[in-house]
Amino acid sequence: MRVGIGILGFGTVGGALLRKLVEEGSSVSTKTGLEIEVVRVAVRDLAKDRPVALADGVLTDNPLEVVNDPGVQLVVEIMGGEEPAGDLVAAALRAGKPVVTANKALIASRGEELIGIAGQSGVPLLFEAAVAGGIPIIRPLSETLAGEQIDRVLGIVNGTTNYILTKMTEEGAEYKAALAEAQELGYAESDPTADVSGADAAAKAAILASLAFGTWVGSDRVYTEGIEHIGATDVRIAAELGYVIKLLAVAENTAEGISVRVHPAVVPAAHPLAVIRGATNAVFVEGPSFHELLFAGPGAGGAPTATAVLGDVVDAARELLAGAQVAPPIRFQPGRVLDFESATTTWYLRLEVADRPGVLAQVAGVFADNDVSIKSVWQEGEDDGATLLLVTHANNEGRQRASAAALRSLEVVRDVAAVIRVEGAGPTPNL
Amino acid sequence: MRVGIGILGFGTVGGALLRKLVEEGSSVSTKTGLEIEVVRVAVRDLAKDRPVALADGVLTDNPLEVVNDPGVQLVVEIMGGEEPAGDLVAAALRAGKPVVTANKALIASRGEELIGIAGQSGVPLLFEAAVAGGIPIIRPLSETLAGEQIDRVLGIVNGTTNYILTKMTEEGAEYKAALAEAQELGYAESDPTADVSGADAAAKAAILASLAFGTWVGSDRVYTEGIEHIGATDVRIAAELGYVIKLLAVAENTAEGISVRVHPAVVPAAHPLAVIRGATNAVFVEGPSFHELLFAGPGAGGAPTATAVLGDVVDAARELLAGAQVAPPIRFQPGRVLDFESATTTWYLRLEVADRPGVLAQVAGVFADNDVSIKSVWQEGEDDGATLLLVTHANNEGRQRASAAALRSLEVVRDVAAVIRVEGAGPTPNL
Repeated sequence: MRVGIGILGFGTVGGALLRKLVEEGSSVSTKTGLEIEVVRVAVRDLAKDRPVALADGVLTDNPLEVVNDPGVQLVVEIMGGEEPAGDLVAAALRAGKPVVTANKALIASRGEELIGIAGQSGVPLLFEAAVAGGIPIIRPLSETLAGEQIDRVLGIVNGTTNYILTKMTEEGAEYKAALAEAQELGYAESDPTADVSGADAAAKAAILASLAFGTWVGSDRVYTEGIEHIGATDVRIAAELGYVIKLLAVAENTAEGISVRVHPAVVPAAHPLAVIRGATNAVFVEGPSFHELLFAGPGAGGAPTATAVLGDVVDAARELLAGAQVAPPIRFQPGRVLDFESATTTWYLRLEVADRPGVLAQVAGVFADNDVSIKSVWQEGEDDGATLLLVTHANNEGRQRASAAALRSLEVVRDVAAVIRVEGAGPTPNL
Repeated sequence: MRVGIGILGFGTVGGALLRKLVEEGSSVSTKTGLEIEVVRVAVRDLAKDRPVALADGVLTDNPLEVVNDPGVQLVVEIMGGEEPAGDLVAAALRAGKPVVTANKALIASRGEELIGIAGQSGVPLLFEAAVAGGIPIIRPLSETLAGEQIDRVLGIVNGTTNYILTKMTEEGAEYKAALAEAQELGYAESDPTADVSGADAAAKAAILASLAFGTWVGSDRVYTEGIEHIGATDVRIAAELGYVIKLLAVAENTAEGISVRVHPAVVPAAHPLAVIRGATNAVFVEGPSFHELLFAGPGAGGAPTATAVLGDVVDAARELLAGAQVAPPIRFQPGRVLDFESATTTWYLRLEVADRPGVLAQVAGVFADNDVSIKSVWQEGEDDGATLLLVTHANNEGRQRASAAALRSLEVVRDVAAVIRVEGAGPTPNL
């Protein structure tokens, strides 16, 4: 069966997708039973050389021509950016054309609205490639686990920061050196802000949380902290204590409400996420029925992302050709999204303190005053002072912050040199 | 939207599924938009106490009444065993009723025929729970990766043997002691043959290979070797050399043909499958586009398996209610399935040899005569002899066997004490 598709964008993912569809089309056809014909492709610059040769008249620099072409039955949006991508996707959906997108920023910002339009038009809007590019995670969350209670999602969803943190862990590199190497190798952009600030991961965390809990969470509700302040010292100390530092996307559904956040986290070395190295992504899902599931694979890259896009294209094309909308439109229920101050967190703190008797008693007193209890303490003496490492028990983020503020005002505390949250403690999962 | 289902079997998985559908039905309904009504349930013994109360007239001891009940629109087969399960599934499919099954033995033995009947009837036959119970792996293989080339699938798909091998690795236990403990804790049956012989894993390997490569592989074509002969000595030596011993399902698609096998394997400690502990299952998939994907989670257990069954029920119910068959019936292409002797393998050998000069030269000569090259050798001297540990380079299984046979005939070789294949060597994956 034949389906005509239009593609918005011809970058790395577009090149990989077109190579599959045009150059290896017959193999895709044998495997899926679908003849996917690329009818129109929108590019910014018609004059640029392209890695895959397309028939005359397929390329256009007007994306609306792709959306409106009567031969285009299904639209693939891989141009990126929020606009005009968002308006083009909305237009395609309103015209009754299924849309496949890899655009996490768009889904995080306008997802609720676009999913609503798709529902009204009775056509699918699929975005497997938007989170953790090459890993099939959206479909398991929204289909296989559709009837299940999901309590928690922990994810390494940004390859750049995981690459940098892996270098820091394995080679003792400082942040700046590891970032420079990531830039040299093409794992980080020349302006790395979106990655290292956690903004990219926050958009993905918002999408994961929305699907896992069935309540729409905008990325503006995601507490976001990057890795710029992580130093080699804490990476080394964490390793000595049996931990690894990762940038985690954390989505929790508790009795008090939903908490979604992205921040560096100290993770026990035995946790399955601790062994995820380099630019790889992984998502760890917890729930009472299925216990713990781990999905891991390439987080980005042209070919893996094109795989996810193609899977969605096949799925959407089959629905289109069957003339039926099988999955009901995703409906989000209202739910309470917690401010980060109300979320429950566990803290690792590194304090630079005076090396004299009674310091620990004063420090412990501050935690007690704020109702935060201390789980463990290590002390490293030095010539002119001492380093105190503490891990607290889980408590309200607000109370943990109040403790830190009070510590700063102690005369014996020279510096609260590092605050990193702890995740994934508790019994070691079997995977 | 309402759908009436019939269930064949009310064991552990049935209990967990009925708890979800009957006791937590409203939550399933909110999340999926489906009202799943349990119309009939077939049990062997009507007098037995059941953990979930069902309305009068729902239970029957005649499974055909479930299949034939006009109110049953969809059949869930969780009675296990090949017959009468197979004939009941075939009857339901012929009557145009979608079937969801968790029965790996049935799919491995009659899958091709039953998938064919489903295709003719235009209704889905879904079996997510049949392989690695709680892990969503069937759907990613058959949908997300539908258009992709898959080169290799490596899986830990039997929880009992992984539990036993984990005990042997972490506590130095001998096989018999670890098995006894697994039996005490309920991880192994009183007759553990199906698990420890590799037969259970072989059925799953056959299903994974068939879906991954699109060529039907019967479980009788799977070379199968169990873990009964694995001793604490080789587990310890493997650990010293940086390896872990796992029972692996291996499915490879090479230029020469398809190779599917289940055997104990020596796996590098840095491989993602090496860290899968206890009764957990994991499946590692390799292909040129998506590189490496890892799926891990609970391999069995009532609740996780019921999660997978419910995901399939929701999927099948949606297709049924949409009145459309969206995914085309799976069609298997003919393909060449290799005899194990023709497959490419890498061997770890432990030889007990005389401790005198020239032994290694003789041993190396035997390998050279068979065109097998040696990758590494370690020697451990003892009072009355020596232990020689060898890892070969990848070669034809037949040649490796010929080398072993020739070694046995050497006067200086007292015993070829262990032969374990090596898998997952090569560059360490980033996950």
